[in-house]
Amino acid sequence: MKLDELFALLRRRGVFWPSAEIYGGAQGLYDYGPAGTALKRRLEDAWCAWFLGLSDDYHRIEPAEIVPEAVVRASGHLENFTDPEVRCTKCGNAFRPDTLLERVRPEGVDGLTPEQIGALLTEAKARCPMCGSTELSVPRPFNLMFGLEFGVTGRERAYLLPETAQASYLAFHRMWDVGRHALPLGIAVVGHAYRNEIAPRQLLFRMRSFTQAELQIFFDPTQFDVPFPDVSAERLPVLRAAARLRGQSAPTEILASELAKEIPPFYVYHLAMSYRFFRDVLGHPATSIRLLEKSDTERAFYNKIQFDIEVHLESLGGFKELGAVHYRGDHDLRRHAEGSGQELQVTPQDRPKVLPHVLELTFGVDRNLWGLADRGLSTQDERTVWSIPTYLAPTVVAIFPLIEKHQGPTARALWNDLRQEGIGAAYDDRGTIGKRYARHDELGTPFCVTVDGTTLATEGPDAGTVTWRERETKAQSRLRPVELAPRLRAALAFPRPVVGSMPPATGPESL
Amino acid sequence: MKLDELFALLRRRGVFWPSAEIYGGAQGLYDYGPAGTALKRRLEDAWCAWFLGLSDDYHRIEPAEIVPEAVVRASGHLENFTDPEVRCTKCGNAFRPDTLLERVRPEGVDGLTPEQIGALLTEAKARCPMCGSTELSVPRPFNLMFGLEFGVTGRERAYLLPETAQASYLAFHRMWDVGRHALPLGIAVVGHAYRNEIAPRQLLFRMRSFTQAELQIFFDPTQFDVPFPDVSAERLPVLRAAARLRGQSAPTEILASELAKEIPPFYVYHLAMSYRFFRDVLGHPATSIRLLEKSDTERAFYNKIQFDIEVHLESLGGFKELGAVHYRGDHDLRRHAEGSGQELQVTPQDRPKVLPHVLELTFGVDRNLWGLADRGLSTQDERTVWSIPTYLAPTVVAIFPLIEKHQGPTARALWNDLRQEGIGAAYDDRGTIGKRYARHDELGTPFCVTVDGTTLATEGPDAGTVTWRERETKAQSRLRPVELAPRLRAALAFPRPVVGSMPPATGPESL
Repeated sequence: MKLDELFALLRRRGVFWPSAEIYGGAQGLYDYGPAGTALKRRLEDAWCAWFLGLSDDYHRIEPAEIVPEAVVRASGHLENFTDPEVRCTKCGNAFRPDTLLERVRPEGVDGLTPEQIGALLTEAKARCPMCGSTELSVPRPFNLMFGLEFGVTGRERAYLLPETAQASYLAFHRMWDVGRHALPLGIAVVGHAYRNEIAPRQLLFRMRSFTQAELQIFFDPTQFDVPFPDVSAERLPVLRAAARLRGQSAPTEILASELAKEIPPFYVYHLAMSYRFFRDVLGHPATSIRLLEKSDTERAFYNKIQFDIEVHLESLGGFKELGAVHYRGDHDLRRHAEGSGQELQVTPQDRPKVLPHVLELTFGVDRNLWGLADRGLSTQDERTVWSIPTYLAPTVVAIFPLIEKHQGPTARALWNDLRQEGIGAAYDDRGTIGKRYARHDELGTPFCVTVDGTTLATEGPDAGTVTWRERETKAQSRLRPVELAPRLRAALAFPRPVVGSMPPATGPESL
Repeated sequence: MKLDELFALLRRRGVFWPSAEIYGGAQGLYDYGPAGTALKRRLEDAWCAWFLGLSDDYHRIEPAEIVPEAVVRASGHLENFTDPEVRCTKCGNAFRPDTLLERVRPEGVDGLTPEQIGALLTEAKARCPMCGSTELSVPRPFNLMFGLEFGVTGRERAYLLPETAQASYLAFHRMWDVGRHALPLGIAVVGHAYRNEIAPRQLLFRMRSFTQAELQIFFDPTQFDVPFPDVSAERLPVLRAAARLRGQSAPTEILASELAKEIPPFYVYHLAMSYRFFRDVLGHPATSIRLLEKSDTERAFYNKIQFDIEVHLESLGGFKELGAVHYRGDHDLRRHAEGSGQELQVTPQDRPKVLPHVLELTFGVDRNLWGLADRGLSTQDERTVWSIPTYLAPTVVAIFPLIEKHQGPTARALWNDLRQEGIGAAYDDRGTIGKRYARHDELGTPFCVTVDGTTLATEGPDAGTVTWRERETKAQSRLRPVELAPRLRAALAFPRPVVGSMPPATGPESL
């Protein structure tokens, strides 16, 4: 589906809509409705089940989303968290130069100086998209953080978190004390990050408030053992930075064991596990996933290695970044040790003191929710169906009485029993059964159960059974009500990674 | 336990700690660690199971937490969301007058004018708590909202949500379209609210960023049917506003059916259901709960009826507000209809057009987390135990191998099976079994399971069983591993309200 068509459907079905819609909306802000909220939570929980499943020493925390100025000064965000901005000197509107240069320079302006960008704008005879004027200002860096006056004295300033990662770095010291004094130690956050984007766009792709799921793994760079054999035979769809420089845009399949000859095995292992999450848990076809290596000039200076995990999305006309793996070195803890004056080196059991390095696994929750809709929703023969893995669907089962006044009480009792067992069930008695199927197909509900005359019957081979109908195949069968809960519960289980099924083939990995 | 003692324990065990601790903390902000995050999520989910269980037409949404200025102008927050503030003219620090007047006026200064407060400060010879000066400014209203520059032009201003409720009012219009065009319609939000408190204090009680769980019920004031017989025999511990004026502070038990002679039945029904949540779901003893009616001068002008749900907390030395029920009339939708210029009246099936009224059920998640710790954590005979309902505990079961090298693999397999079934299990192989019991008693883990020699044995009456140990009684028994999952799953089910077990005794209630 096209972007507008898909958004119209999702808005109509209450998945999400522009925030403060009755006031004309607020650029870059969206509200999730009931179906979107349920789906977002399933997606977050699936992410946690997978990535926290990588080690017993990975934990989830829920930090505050406001930080004092000292934190973003130390992290470098106060100085460097900027996008170049260009202003129309006639109408006063502000723009991102990359959007003004989209036609002549689709690869963007990452890594260019303001002067270089200014020269490109002049050369391209760029115009203000609002008033058409060519009188554009010289590009200047615009800081994307939202600042706040904190407290009543006017002396303190604080910022909304520009990336959830910072909260994990702040928590490392305390988490070390609470935990069992071993590395690697993982700290995961599913929370909001805030960016005052110059030009929010593409709905859930460039928002001013968005949800990130991030795992920061703190490790000793001289010893990060991973069960590499678990992934060594995985074929990764990789697009290396050097290949891109040569003009290549399609990924090349490469064995993880081969890639690990050039890139540290601990990194390749986590890249492969992230790839599996997109393919095996979210269900994106391998052919629509690309692991894109960022070059020296593209990635942040502190990132030693960065691959973005991109998925091809029809509604956005190409591959889009939905996650990434960043090897950030000791940059973060070093900066915060300096900024706070605290000792952040630790002494693991039986090992020398070390300032841990960080491997960061990131995941954009909102973008990925859109990604599931883009891939899953399609219309064929007037039937619109959202194909989505059962454990991610907003509602796993819908219960229908064939006729409310006849089977209503029995259907409601069944519905209540399922909810009591913690199974997300919906109840629907509106319209024909066909219309109800259609409604739930569109929302991705994998199973529908109809309580009908046979359910209430006391005689006959199927007496007491309900109609079970599957979204993907439209196949129907009859089940005893007692079979529903176990079957649904099994279908709701999140996939977990197979970890450490074999001992590491070699000794401790080192960088 | 005392406040400091309880906080020290919770911080040490990673339940929560001051945010940005390595930078000396940020006043009024806290981070939840692994145990706190798990507990907070269980608490939120228990709230949702109970309150969304009141009707099939109550739904949860997840809105953005930033709103444009027009929203808070219409809601009145821009003008009225203030606390009186007093400044020391010597040292420049700012204070809340109620804290400076705490000794002479423990009931606070709600409803007084700045002039009246100034007179009280002079009369009490109040001094600056920081420098001791008596040169305090005249009190002035200080707006508690956090403002942001929104966008790049400097022309737009936005605010962090001062109460989650506003997001539900903004969503009403869209939710009406998405839903089945019937009243009452409930919109629940579990999310952050932000207040630039003049004096954050008492840890999770007056925070600058906190989590509210709120249900806004939109209804037709001429017809809000509730299954009142479900609650009519409930004895409510009520402290009426008139009784407080006479100096009474202890609640009086009154039958819900009696209270409903003075207060609309729909209100009493929801007050009783909220009371049951605190007593039956959170497990607070009936004797430590008080339903305190706010007087005309205490409650916001738009609140027609307000009872706070207070629980006696030892660490804070008295009854504290942990929830409330507000009958807000049509104030909210009327203001937003005016502010946005949108029609917010709706036409329910078979009913005339109406501007819905709002009944608001509020719940402070952070405060209630503290409340569970305050009531549950105690030390007796050197044994510290957190007594907490099983479905709320951060971890429902801990799996121990008696000796890691002997029973480790079997214990880990069992642990993985339980996690695969979505059961929050911990694994612990550190120290003696007694120390492990002690650790999990302190974190509220209701059940511990030890895999020991008998588990691996192939002969004998108990061969293959594990040791099952209960936190509350310290009782031990032997179970077959296959019995664990069903038993734990049943223990994890959230209580749901019994709703509509009888038809309303009378016709439609009207105000």
